[in-house]
Amino acid sequence: MSLLQVALDFLHIKDALNIASLTYQYIDIIEAGTPLIKSEGVRVVETLKKNFQEKNIFADLKIMDTGALEAKMAFDAGADLISVCAQASVETITGAIEETRRQNKKIVIDLIGSRDWLYRSREIQYLKPDFFCIHISLDEQRKCKKTFSGLENYTKEIQIPFCIAGGIKPEDIPLIMPFQPFIIIVGGYIIKAEKPDEAAKTIKEAIINWKPQ
Amino acid sequence: MSLLQVALDFLHIKDALNIASLTYQYIDIIEAGTPLIKSEGVRVVETLKKNFQEKNIFADLKIMDTGALEAKMAFDAGADLISVCAQASVETITGAIEETRRQNKKIVIDLIGSRDWLYRSREIQYLKPDFFCIHISLDEQRKCKKTFSGLENYTKEIQIPFCIAGGIKPEDIPLIMPFQPFIIIVGGYIIKAEKPDEAAKTIKEAIINWKPQ
Repeated sequence: MSLLQVALDFLHIKDALNIASLTYQYIDIIEAGTPLIKSEGVRVVETLKKNFQEKNIFADLKIMDTGALEAKMAFDAGADLISVCAQASVETITGAIEETRRQNKKIVIDLIGSRDWLYRSREIQYLKPDFFCIHISLDEQRKCKKTFSGLENYTKEIQIPFCIAGGIKPEDIPLIMPFQPFIIIVGGYIIKAEKPDEAAKTIKEAIINWKPQ
Repeated sequence: MSLLQVALDFLHIKDALNIASLTYQYIDIIEAGTPLIKSEGVRVVETLKKNFQEKNIFADLKIMDTGALEAKMAFDAGADLISVCAQASVETITGAIEETRRQNKKIVIDLIGSRDWLYRSREIQYLKPDFFCIHISLDEQRKCKKTFSGLENYTKEIQIPFCIAGGIKPEDIPLIMPFQPFIIIVGGYIIKAEKPDEAAKTIKEAIINWKPQ
């Protein structure tokens, strides 16, 4: 069964705490978004962990350098999962993975910016991350350029579990569930909703109720 | 004449303020490093600007998504220059550049993670950043993999001014000066020195006293 992660892409911790409180019961993983970490600092991870101890906290660091240092910083603050960019050097990805193993936590290699998800995953799967993240960036979503087509080929070849992110709405759930994403990451549909709790519930139910045809 | 930028790659603002105070007179641009921003939040930029008003402050955001949002966040905090990753999508780079133009500030496209600096610069130079940054990551430096060879070919073709970063020491200055970098970024050699002020002075003098053969 796929887990649901809410991406708290805010600039202020109070907005993040508000949405996390509202959607709490439908969410498996709470994400401290990249802009939130850069705006408020890694203490947002500490605050989220303190307030939602039973939830996994994902620190979306999108590491591009100093892999071990940034990974340790986030784990010290209470993160359960972190992200490193697939576009970082192999040395940086390796540093972040090694620190994750030392801490017995989890790491996602985020394919954001990779023009070919399958090609880049093929190149670096030997590094054995816990997950890849197939990711259409927020800026790309605005231009409506990329789609999730290609998931079938991707999952046929890449055996490492994957997360999926990028403007996901309830109607996308039946299109991606056949490929068994480990984590489905939803931002805007929940955090910009008039009723974020209902939006989270709708997505969660779409995931739970999905059945193979 | 090339400008000297000190990269304050710390986790705590007090260390950054300490080195900035010590090296102040030799430095043209003060960089709030990526780990520092992620650790303490963008308020470090505000603190540096407040303490060193006559200096340019570079916020090393290494943006990978939400280009306009993160750019605005840093400029609001007082940054004069920011960075976006060359490995981000064109949409993200464009968003960051457009926000930079609105604010009448400067932007660097950081080539970190690009396996071929010239190839990637060629692809995206039409976006007209103020600078490219030729950058060997800290993690790559530890493995001694990359070098700055290729600067001659690069500068023959790419007309956009460039910054250069990656383990630069005094002995590297004569090797890079012939290619007229706009900004020389030095981290470890200064910030890890026993006497950071003397290290900064040594680099600054190497830049000032360099003469074409």
